[in-house]
Amino acid sequence: MEPKAAALARGTRDFGPAQMRRRQFVFGIITEAFRRYGYGPLETPAMEQLATLTGKYGDEGDKLIFHILNSGNFAEGIEEGVWMHQRSNPKGLVPLISEKALRYDLTVPLARFVAMNHSKIAWPFKRYQIQPVWRADRPQKGRFREFVQCDADIVGQEISTFHRAELLRIYQEVLEALGFHSFAVKVNDRRLLALLAAWGGISGRWAALGIQLDKLDKQGWDKVGPELVQLGMRSEAVEHLQAALPASGRDGFVMSWEDYRTAVSRWMQDPNCIDDAGLREQTELALDETQQMVEAYERLGSNPSKLTFDPCLARGIDYYTGPVVEVVSPALGLGSLGGGGYYSGLTAMFGYPDWKGMGISFGAERILEGMEQLGLFREEVGRGLDILCYATSPGMELVAQQWTARWRGQGLAADWYAGTGKFKKAYQYAQLTETVALVILGDREWAQGEVTVHWIQGDHQRKVQPEQIDAAFLGSALKQA
Amino acid sequence: MEPKAAALARGTRDFGPAQMRRRQFVFGIITEAFRRYGYGPLETPAMEQLATLTGKYGDEGDKLIFHILNSGNFAEGIEEGVWMHQRSNPKGLVPLISEKALRYDLTVPLARFVAMNHSKIAWPFKRYQIQPVWRADRPQKGRFREFVQCDADIVGQEISTFHRAELLRIYQEVLEALGFHSFAVKVNDRRLLALLAAWGGISGRWAALGIQLDKLDKQGWDKVGPELVQLGMRSEAVEHLQAALPASGRDGFVMSWEDYRTAVSRWMQDPNCIDDAGLREQTELALDETQQMVEAYERLGSNPSKLTFDPCLARGIDYYTGPVVEVVSPALGLGSLGGGGYYSGLTAMFGYPDWKGMGISFGAERILEGMEQLGLFREEVGRGLDILCYATSPGMELVAQQWTARWRGQGLAADWYAGTGKFKKAYQYAQLTETVALVILGDREWAQGEVTVHWIQGDHQRKVQPEQIDAAFLGSALKQA
Repeated sequence: MEPKAAALARGTRDFGPAQMRRRQFVFGIITEAFRRYGYGPLETPAMEQLATLTGKYGDEGDKLIFHILNSGNFAEGIEEGVWMHQRSNPKGLVPLISEKALRYDLTVPLARFVAMNHSKIAWPFKRYQIQPVWRADRPQKGRFREFVQCDADIVGQEISTFHRAELLRIYQEVLEALGFHSFAVKVNDRRLLALLAAWGGISGRWAALGIQLDKLDKQGWDKVGPELVQLGMRSEAVEHLQAALPASGRDGFVMSWEDYRTAVSRWMQDPNCIDDAGLREQTELALDETQQMVEAYERLGSNPSKLTFDPCLARGIDYYTGPVVEVVSPALGLGSLGGGGYYSGLTAMFGYPDWKGMGISFGAERILEGMEQLGLFREEVGRGLDILCYATSPGMELVAQQWTARWRGQGLAADWYAGTGKFKKAYQYAQLTETVALVILGDREWAQGEVTVHWIQGDHQRKVQPEQIDAAFLGSALKQA
Repeated sequence: MEPKAAALARGTRDFGPAQMRRRQFVFGIITEAFRRYGYGPLETPAMEQLATLTGKYGDEGDKLIFHILNSGNFAEGIEEGVWMHQRSNPKGLVPLISEKALRYDLTVPLARFVAMNHSKIAWPFKRYQIQPVWRADRPQKGRFREFVQCDADIVGQEISTFHRAELLRIYQEVLEALGFHSFAVKVNDRRLLALLAAWGGISGRWAALGIQLDKLDKQGWDKVGPELVQLGMRSEAVEHLQAALPASGRDGFVMSWEDYRTAVSRWMQDPNCIDDAGLREQTELALDETQQMVEAYERLGSNPSKLTFDPCLARGIDYYTGPVVEVVSPALGLGSLGGGGYYSGLTAMFGYPDWKGMGISFGAERILEGMEQLGLFREEVGRGLDILCYATSPGMELVAQQWTARWRGQGLAADWYAGTGKFKKAYQYAQLTETVALVILGDREWAQGEVTVHWIQGDHQRKVQPEQIDAAFLGSALKQA
C-alpha cells in the first residue's frame, strides 16, 4: 500500500495536548458552574434519525446538515428510473440513501430526549450538554465544520423568574472565573420588541424589525436606520431609538434596567400602543417578569451586577418568546461570547406543546480565542508534567525511575526521560510538554544526597535534596524549592 | 408540521444525568492516571478523509465504516452511465458521493496526527484520547454503533521497557481505583507466539495459530484443540499446552513469569526451535525485554503485582509485533476489560515506517457495566444536588432562594424547588436528581432559627440551624447533621 499524505478533512481540527489542556480548563469551569446551579449532564448520540433533524433549522439549515450514507448495498433497492431521475435532486435523493444525520445543535436532541423520557425525568428538567456539532458551512477563519457547543437549559411547565435569573448569573460567574472583566450580559424580551414595533408604527412586524436590529452589530445605525424607515418605521422613532442608544449595539453597555423600564413606559403611552389591549397586557407581563428576574439576579450573587438592557437585542426571533440574552465583550471584537433565551413550543415538534424552556449557550470557541488574545490562561492551566527525571549516567536510571514512580504515587504528573547523554533533548521535551521541573540525577550529586532541579519557566537551576521537591509541589502553592 | 414520534437512531444511546455522572467518574479516574503517567490529551475530529480510513481495518472493517454524504448537489457531476452502473456496487459508488467518514478507532487518527505533526511534537509522543467511535455493526445487547474508546499510546523511535511496563501498571492502578479486586493483567509477546508455533511443529504459522488461540476464550480447548491439530500442530504439543494451562484462557490466571520463562526455555530445546537461529535470537530478545519489563513493573507500584502470563494470548496478530496485554476479570464474565500491545509500522501507512509504539485501551463500556454489576459505584459518585431547598409557604420562598445562592457560593450544588404546597413533588425531584439533603423552610421553624433537613438516602428528618448544614457538607466527610 502506498503511504498516503496525512491530512485533515476540510474545516476540522486536531487539538494536541497543549490546546487540549486549555480547552479542558475552560470546559471544566463551565461544567462546575452548571453543576453548582443544579444542571445535570446529558449526552446524546452524534447520529440522529434524519427525520429528527429535517425541517427544524429552516431551509438554509437543512442544507448544512451532514448526512450519513446507509450501510451495505444501499442503492440496490432503488428503482432504476427513480435512481436516474433523482441524480441531480439532492432533496429527493438524500432520503433514499441516508436515514441518519449528524447532530446540528444540542437543542433538537434535547427536545427529542425530553419527549422520549418525559415520564422518567425530574421536572423541571435541568440539563447541561457539552458536545460537538457538525455543520457543512464553507470553512473560513474562525468557522469550522465541527465545533463544540456548550448549553444549559431548564425545561418545564413553567420557568420561575429565579431560574431565569440564574442562567444569566451563570454567564457572569463563568466569565469572571475565566478572568474576563470587560463584558456585559445584555437582556431584552421578545414581547418588548413587539412594543417597540408598535411604537415605531409597524405594529405586529416585530419579526421583520428583529431581523433588521440583529444587523446593528455588524452594520451600525447608518445602514440599519434607513432599512427601518424602509420597513415602515417612523423616522422620528428611528432617530429617537438611535439617540437613546448612542453607543451602538456593538458597544453593548446600553441601558440600566431602570432607564429601560422608563423608556418602555414612555413608549407605552404612544397612541399606537395604548389602545392595543393585548400589547398592553404582554408589555406589563414582560415588565413584571423582568423586574422579578432582575431582583432575583441581584440576590444570586454578591459581586456587582453585569446585567444591562438592550432594547434592540433580538436573537433568533422565530424561536424565542420571552426574555433573550447575549454576552458581549466589545473590547475583544469577537462578537457574542454566548446567548440564549426563553422559548415555548420547542418540544411541540415531538408532540408536547405545553413545555416551556430557557437556555443559555457558551460560545466556547470564541471564549478560548478571547482568552488567548487577552493572555488569560495562567501558567498552571497549560501545565503538562510536574516533573521530568533525567539521569546523566546509565547507573542513575534506576534511581530516576524509582523517584518517578514515587512522585506519581503522590499524585504528581511525572516521567522519566529515556536515555542518558541527551540532556538537550530532555530539556526540549520538558519545554514542549510544558513541564514545571526537570530533575537531573547525576552520580556525584546523588552520592551527596542531592539532585539538580531545573525550573523550566524561570530557566534557573539549583541543587536540592529530592525530598525537597515533594515539598515544593505538595505545599500550598507551587513554591520553587 | 406533524409532530414526529421521538426516537433514537438504531444502535445509539442517550446518557441522562444519572448515567453521565457515573461515566464522568470512570473517565475521570482513567484520565487522572494517564495524566500522572505523563500522557497528554489529544482530540481528533469525528470526520476524517475517506482515504485516511479506507484500507486500514481489513475488508470487514471497511464495510463497517460510516460514510458521510458530500454536501450540495453531490451526484450532479457524475456521468449518467457511471451513475447507473455503480448503483448496486457500493465499493465503486461510495467514493463518488462521499469523501469523508466517521472515526472508526483512535489509532489511525493518532498515526495521522503524528505524521502531520512530527516536527512539532515532543518525542516520545505520549498521548491519551477518550472519544467516541462509530461502527456500522449490527446492534445487539452490549454492542453499539457509537461507543467511547479510551486509549493511551507512546510512540517513538524506541519504547523503553520502563514505559512499556507503566502502561501495564496503569491498568492495575485504574481498576483498583475503580474498586475492582478480581482481575488479572495478562501478558504475552508476539515473538513467543512464533516460538510456540515452531515448537508445536507449525514453524512460521504463528498468525494462523494466533487466530485459533484467540477463540479459546469463547470456545475452550474442546473446540480449539482439534483445530490446532488440524492446523498441523503436534497433538502432544496441544495436549502439553492444555495441561500447562489447566485453567482455560477464560479464567485468565494462568502462569507466573517465572513459570512461563521456564516453559519457554524448555520449548526452545525442541529440535524445531533450537536450529532456527532467527527464532532463537527473537526469543532471547523477547525474554530479556519481558524480564526488564516485569522488573520495571514491580518497581512502579507498591501494591502486589497483578501481572500474569498467558502463552495463548494472541490479540490482533496482524498488528502487534512485541508484547501484548489483556485485562480480564473472569468473575464478571464480560470478556476483556481492556487490551493493547506493542506495534511497529503503524505510522508507515502515512510514510513514516520507523516509529514504534505501545498502547493500551480501556473497554470503558464494559468497565461501566462491570461496576454496575458489582455495585462498585459509591453513593457520592451519582450525587446530583447536594441541597434542594423547599419553602412550605410563599413567604419563605425568598429565604429559600437566598440560602440556595449562599450554598452555591460555597461550591455546593444547590437548587430551589419552585412552588410551595408541592412537598411530594419536591421530594420526588430530590430523589430523581440524586439529591443528598432536602432542606424544608417553614415559617414557624424559621421564626425559631431552624429548618428541617430531610436526608434522602437514609430517609430521616431533623431540625437544625441552617448554618449546621454548611458544616455537614463542608466538613471533612459528608456527615449527616
